Amino acid sequence: RDRVHSAVNGTRFQRLVVAVIVVNAVVLGCETSTALTAAHGDLLAGLDRAALAFFTAELAARLYAHRARFFHDPWNVFDLLVVSVSLLPAAGPLSVVRSLRVLRALRLVSVVPSMRRVVTALVRSVPGLLSLTGLLVLVLYVGSVVAVNLFRASGDPRFADLGATVLTLFQITTGDGWSDVMRDLMVTHPLAWVFFLAYLLVGTFTMLNLFIAVVCSAMES
Amino acid sequence: RDRVHSAVNGTRFQRLVVAVIVVNAVVLGCETSTALTAAHGDLLAGLDRAALAFFTAELAARLYAHRARFFHDPWNVFDLLVVSVSLLPAAGPLSVVRSLRVLRALRLVSVVPSMRRVVTALVRSVPGLLSLTGLLVLVLYVGSVVAVNLFRASGDPRFADLGATVLTLFQITTGDGWSDVMRDLMVTHPLAWVFFLAYLLVGTFTMLNLFIAVVCSAMES
Amino acid sequence: RDRVHSAVNGTRFQRLVVAVIVVNAVVLGCETSTALTAAHGDLLAGLDRAALAFFTAELAARLYAHRARFFHDPWNVFDLLVVSVSLLPAAGPLSVVRSLRVLRALRLVSVVPSMRRVVTALVRSVPGLLSLTGLLVLVLYVGSVVAVNLFRASGDPRFADLGATVLTLFQITTGDGWSDVMRDLMVTHPLAWVFFLAYLLVGTFTMLNLFIAVVCSAMES
Amino acid sequence: RDRVHSAVNGTRFQRLVVAVIVVNAVVLGCETSTALTAAHGDLLAGLDRAALAFFTAELAARLYAHRARFFHDPWNVFDLLVVSVSLLPAAGPLSVVRSLRVLRALRLVSVVPSMRRVVTALVRSVPGLLSLTGLLVLVLYVGSVVAVNLFRASGDPRFADLGATVLTLFQITTGDGWSDVMRDLMVTHPLAWVFFLAYLLVGTFTMLNLFIAVVCSAMES
Ligand code: NA
Ligand code: NA
Repeated sequence: RDRVHSAVNGTRFQRLVVAVIVVNAVVLGCETSTALTAAHGDLLAGLDRAALAFFTAELAARLYAHRARFFHDPWNVFDLLVVSVSLLPAAGPLSVVRSLRVLRALRLVSVVPSMRRVVTALVRSVPGLLSLTGLLVLVLYVGSVVAVNLFRASGDPRFADLGATVLTLFQITTGDGWSDVMRDLMVTHPLAWVFFLAYLLVGTFTMLNLFIAVVCSAMES
Repeated sequence: RDRVHSAVNGTRFQRLVVAVIVVNAVVLGCETSTALTAAHGDLLAGLDRAALAFFTAELAARLYAHRARFFHDPWNVFDLLVVSVSLLPAAGPLSVVRSLRVLRALRLVSVVPSMRRVVTALVRSVPGLLSLTGLLVLVLYVGSVVAVNLFRASGDPRFADLGATVLTLFQITTGDGWSDVMRDLMVTHPLAWVFFLAYLLVGTFTMLNLFIAVVCSAMES
Repeated sequence: RDRVHSAVNGTRFQRLVVAVIVVNAVVLGCETSTALTAAHGDLLAGLDRAALAFFTAELAARLYAHRARFFHDPWNVFDLLVVSVSLLPAAGPLSVVRSLRVLRALRLVSVVPSMRRVVTALVRSVPGLLSLTGLLVLVLYVGSVVAVNLFRASGDPRFADLGATVLTLFQITTGDGWSDVMRDLMVTHPLAWVFFLAYLLVGTFTMLNLFIAVVCSAMES
Repeated sequence: RDRVHSAVNGTRFQRLVVAVIVVNAVVLGCETSTALTAAHGDLLAGLDRAALAFFTAELAARLYAHRARFFHDPWNVFDLLVVSVSLLPAAGPLSVVRSLRVLRALRLVSVVPSMRRVVTALVRSVPGLLSLTGLLVLVLYVGSVVAVNLFRASGDPRFADLGATVLTLFQITTGDGWSDVMRDLMVTHPLAWVFFLAYLLVGTFTMLNLFIAVVCSAMES
């Protein structure tokens, strides 16, 4: 068990893992090309299966070496999830799950120490943002219920039901093409600008403060 | 009176209030669906009326317990306003007022302490922003009077009158599709870019400094 | 002379100036409405002339009271310029100059102390930004000469000559609709994305650092 | 050698270099105008050749004066590269290389001390950004492989192959017209919004942290 432990944590082995991840990511990229799949489909599928086998074996070895402590490190859980997703498509022709195989490439984050530090810092800043995110979701929901009641009669598909309206108001919060949406509505609802200005003011102000909270928590670390 | 006071401020009662707010928000969301209203319209309307009755009773109890001190806490005034808006639609078929009933969901902010803190911090940063906001409004007004005089002759509906021009210049200040507006104008007014560059420079610089003021006041707290 | 001095600097007189500025701004706004001009054109023009006469008299009084020291305060020079622009249209039917009369409303900034402080802070941050602005102009010019040589053959009017290309690249630097411009070019120049990514990287990075310089100079004051 | 050294570093000579760079940049700008090239093409080409000869001679003199130490200063290497690119077009009719001649104008940065400082500060902030840039590239690549697998069947040319999808997801990360892309996809893939929200959340959050890292490294210097 100790020999397995030192083997899977050695620098050489880590470099091998990085190499397999990169090769695997390139293979999955090549498989998106119909020309390359037609010419070398078997080779690409073989390389992908080999990489998956390697990752499964590596995880098994680390599970054997660390035993229950394996689950104490969230990065191990992350690796396990990402590899498990890749094992799923064998169960059926679920194309969505198949396309998630490339998430394996995210293992690069857990293997390269500098990336690991960066992502750990990003994730640590999330809890401090929950109150503001909750506020933003609340503003989005309340604004959407108001908007769908006010603008549904316009016949605009962007305000056809609550789901579509939530998407539209999220779009407006990011500032992408909000004036087009407003001008289209103002044909049937000339006072639509009142809602848009009020929502932009509240939504953008909340969003801006969420950004500031991200900046502050990032600067502390 | 003391028993009422401790009852409405107890943790259990607060949780009940949160639950009613969330259920009520979901009900108002469901009422935006024509399918759900057709199938369970009476149930949804009943739940909404029950929630409103609960909020009215709760506010009455708090008014009774706190008496005049009730109005010292701006959050109480906020709750009173939000619930009063919901009582209005009973007076007539004003569809706009009806659609504002969902503002009740914003009571979540006054009930959940962490959200209350966040919004209090947001609101406290507003007074420090008044000078810059005033400057931005002044720049917007002066720019709009100049723009409507210069570009009204182009026949572009976005510069048809002062109101439309203010909206268009606000759109340009947020950076949404400003180049489309400029290129359309340059067909009839080839020198329109001079105005746009000048306005973007002054407007965006002022807006940026407004953002910085938000950041600074947020960092102090 | 001392009496004139204390009169023009008194609080009451300042309030009168603010009132005249606001009324004058509203009058100039009303004059943009063809309906209002048709109905009350003479009244509006009379009010405008009266306000201009008031401003001219006030400036003359301040010039008399302060003499040469008048020109030591840049805000006085600002007032003089803004009122002079308003005196110009009497000289001829220059519609552009006429539309600049509303710049008089900017006198509000020089009269209201809190706005004066804000704008003084904004203007003071400009010198520290000159190097970065120069760099941005250089990047814009160099990028435009490269782009016009590369993409003029596409027939796209946005790259027809150097002037149009500078405008287009400025648009891309602000991020407004850059992907539409790129996709249109990629029909004739499939490698156009190389230029766009390179330019976006350099231009946005420079712009971002310009913003940071604004933030830093703002935080120092 | 000492006389050459003091000559090329003297203030007067530096000013001459700045003047030649500016004149040369204007000449290259004029050459983009077909009207000006038709009328004064020979003069412009002559001025350009003269400027290039001047830069070549100046670099040769500095190489002679500094010898091997010439290459210790990265700005000298920058000057050498920029002038070498300009010497290339003599070798053939490569229009792309010809259009890169204007990069010579970037020598202004290496000659003007304040611009040199600004760009040195910008370049120094790059190494600290490599981890986050790597993460952003990884997120972009993984997201693109997922997206091309999910959305290729829609027939949208923006998701036709991996290259087009990488460009589209980069566009979405910058926030330019992301809602148009999503709405077009939702015609054939009604659940496309799930991918877009997830990608916007992860991509924008990473991008925002990259910006913050730029701000932090800029503030330290
Ligand atoms: Na846009
Ligand atoms: Na945009």
